[in-house]
Amino acid sequence: MKLFLKNIIDSQDTKSGKFFDVFIQILIILSLVSFSLETIPNLDPQIIRLSSLFEIISIIIFTIEYLLRIYVSDRKFSYVFSFYGFIDFVAIAPFYLSGTIDLRSLRVVRLLRIFKLFRFNESLTLLKKAFLIVKREMIIFSFIAIMLLYISSVGIYFLENPAQPDQFSSIFACMWWAISTMTTVGYGDMVPVTVGGKIFTSLISFIGIGVVSIPTALLASSLTGLLHINKDELDK
Amino acid sequence: MKLFLKNIIDSQDTKSGKFFDVFIQILIILSLVSFSLETIPNLDPQIIRLSSLFEIISIIIFTIEYLLRIYVSDRKFSYVFSFYGFIDFVAIAPFYLSGTIDLRSLRVVRLLRIFKLFRFNESLTLLKKAFLIVKREMIIFSFIAIMLLYISSVGIYFLENPAQPDQFSSIFACMWWAISTMTTVGYGDMVPVTVGGKIFTSLISFIGIGVVSIPTALLASSLTGLLHINKDELDK
Amino acid sequence: MKLFLKNIIDSQDTKSGKFFDVFIQILIILSLVSFSLETIPNLDPQIIRLSSLFEIISIIIFTIEYLLRIYVSDRKFSYVFSFYGFIDFVAIAPFYLSGTIDLRSLRVVRLLRIFKLFRFNESLTLLKKAFLIVKREMIIFSFIAIMLLYISSVGIYFLENPAQPDQFSSIFACMWWAISTMTTVGYGDMVPVTVGGKIFTSLISFIGIGVVSIPTALLASSLTGLLHINKDELDK
Amino acid sequence: MKLFLKNIIDSQDTKSGKFFDVFIQILIILSLVSFSLETIPNLDPQIIRLSSLFEIISIIIFTIEYLLRIYVSDRKFSYVFSFYGFIDFVAIAPFYLSGTIDLRSLRVVRLLRIFKLFRFNESLTLLKKAFLIVKREMIIFSFIAIMLLYISSVGIYFLENPAQPDQFSSIFACMWWAISTMTTVGYGDMVPVTVGGKIFTSLISFIGIGVVSIPTALLASSLTGLLHINKDELDK
Repeated sequence: MKLFLKNIIDSQDTKSGKFFDVFIQILIILSLVSFSLETIPNLDPQIIRLSSLFEIISIIIFTIEYLLRIYVSDRKFSYVFSFYGFIDFVAIAPFYLSGTIDLRSLRVVRLLRIFKLFRFNESLTLLKKAFLIVKREMIIFSFIAIMLLYISSVGIYFLENPAQPDQFSSIFACMWWAISTMTTVGYGDMVPVTVGGKIFTSLISFIGIGVVSIPTALLASSLTGLLHINKDELDK
Repeated sequence: MKLFLKNIIDSQDTKSGKFFDVFIQILIILSLVSFSLETIPNLDPQIIRLSSLFEIISIIIFTIEYLLRIYVSDRKFSYVFSFYGFIDFVAIAPFYLSGTIDLRSLRVVRLLRIFKLFRFNESLTLLKKAFLIVKREMIIFSFIAIMLLYISSVGIYFLENPAQPDQFSSIFACMWWAISTMTTVGYGDMVPVTVGGKIFTSLISFIGIGVVSIPTALLASSLTGLLHINKDELDK
Repeated sequence: MKLFLKNIIDSQDTKSGKFFDVFIQILIILSLVSFSLETIPNLDPQIIRLSSLFEIISIIIFTIEYLLRIYVSDRKFSYVFSFYGFIDFVAIAPFYLSGTIDLRSLRVVRLLRIFKLFRFNESLTLLKKAFLIVKREMIIFSFIAIMLLYISSVGIYFLENPAQPDQFSSIFACMWWAISTMTTVGYGDMVPVTVGGKIFTSLISFIGIGVVSIPTALLASSLTGLLHINKDELDK
Repeated sequence: MKLFLKNIIDSQDTKSGKFFDVFIQILIILSLVSFSLETIPNLDPQIIRLSSLFEIISIIIFTIEYLLRIYVSDRKFSYVFSFYGFIDFVAIAPFYLSGTIDLRSLRVVRLLRIFKLFRFNESLTLLKKAFLIVKREMIIFSFIAIMLLYISSVGIYFLENPAQPDQFSSIFACMWWAISTMTTVGYGDMVPVTVGGKIFTSLISFIGIGVVSIPTALLASSLTGLLHINKDELDK
């Protein structure tokens, strides 16, 4: 009996195991959609009632899942105190502790269910590996990027503050501009108007965009390097 | 006679075959331009009349093309039910079925002619190959990107909703902001104003931009890998 | 005498040759700056007069340069009818033809002097080489990008036109939006407001940004490939 | 005694040396935060007083650090006139010269302390190396980028100036637009409205974005090349 359930819950190789995984994943996603729906203002009360009903059903299923996972695991203690054991618990605990689906205060906790999705995604290890290879370089470039962001903020503060004291009000306010510019998002809520500010922006943006985009390029390059190695190994 | 037409219509190696292909391509593009022209409001009636005339002419030519393609193909049945056979049919069918060039209801169907253009572009297979190599990684990163988009949306909702309830009205509304920010489009229709929202945006944007741009980098790297292999093979 | 001048004008290896090149380059750049200055509205008449004076001086120098280049070239005819010979002529001709520095009508012709700058930049051949390697792929991707731009424009037209008939007025108007979005410039002058338009934008932008950025990635990859080859050759 | 202090101040291998470095780094960062805080308008006088107090404390510590660094260095003269010796001096000098923490006039000088942070980041040499490898190509592409920026500015000036004389007022004003567009920041403060201007922007933006992003791609590629070499050397 225990082995039968273990095959369903823990294994990803059996057909029933895959079905169980997909079922739980869909439930998590629906649970997140339901959570998001509730944030829409002036929602139809009918939808709110349906959403609450669905929340109760999903809590029941997640509870059964949690209990089954404890039941089938050989080392129960280590599962309960593992990362996913903790997430599985937190995803249902608030309901039992408060005795109600209090939609306000416990909302955010329900969101932690998103981490349950990662359990099914073992390929994240590849990303982790790729990150570790260029970790040191990414730290250096993050440091350089932050320095450049700060210098840009100070520069634009002294250049634009006299002309637009409300917009470029402090160095912290200018940091928001610097981030919006260097990531090339460019919301347009803070725009230099002085000649000095514009020349400064032109100079700093070319350097800054490069510096900000290099960590991404490093990670992508490290990832593709790993993929090529994998492919080479397969070819042998 | 059939062989002569076959050389013109099916072959891309003969001079007349190339000429026929280019002629059909130009007709498709002009047909799309004519379609686009008709959407301009308060258009000169003269232009509308010309456009309708051109539409009739192009339908006649596409009909002749369709009939000739059936005529020259050795396995007529398999052509008619192939993807391009279907597109060739749909591009002309509405006119015969309705007996009129009803500009409103059948407009979109005319657009399917764009897929006729792909027939002439056999190099798309390279892109397809490159995509298949990094398919698994792209799925993983798309998954991570969607997760990050969702987490960003939830975060900004709780940080900005109290300050801007009209703009950041729900998690779904915030997703629009998240997409606009992480793709660095930055329309500027939704901009965080709270200190918390700005700090959150700064943190999430650096990570998010990387995650969103990595699938592109992977595909580009896979493509250039393929090109180098092709070149190496040519060098041998 | 002719050899002495030839060393100065044609050679880039001698000290005087380098000095002459740098002098002409600075004059071209100053000439472009002067051209740009004249476009500033309500300019100080003093500056306009100085600019006109500088224009006359530079025309005199460019004339001397032109005559000297004809004088020192062994095959005068081929220089005069070469690309740079033509540019050198056009940069001074308008003044002699009109007998005046007519600031309005001949403005643009003066700008052609910018191409004189390329003469000194022989390294452009590297870029040209890198471009030729990925030429075929770049054409394919440009084709795909244009197709995607068109499809996006049509899609957003049908989704947003009913809600914003003034903004998304025709497919051509929507093309401007599509370009602004897919290049991630995101001016914010045209922003989807309907739910359908926003979902469509989200889907299309992820694909579109990738497609638009791949030609750049290809060119960059081809360029770095060339540089590595050069380095490998140097190492041997 | 001198050796004992030398181990603390100059060495990064001993535990006390690392602790000293981290302590100075945190002090520099706090000093920059305090500097930034003072730019916030209408600041609580209590915070201003605390900030001034912190400034005095940090000047005292930086003075002790400076004197100790002179004391422990074997070639005192060369330290004092080194780059970091100069920065260490400038970071404290204004206070002693003016005899007051004049928050206005000497503000910027305090900021030079940011360069003290680089002392602890020896990994910058990697970036420097990577830059030197592609230096020549980066100069060429910067040149091409500037040329393209100028041509774009001139083009948009002639196309948009008649329609928007206040926005696209001169070629210099248009340069701001060109930079904002080609870096894809797209603030939205200057947007073409004419058909010609929009078509021109579409054409130029595709080329421009590529040209502007290539120097970054080159640097990233050079960096990852270096990292791979390092890895290969480690593998041997």
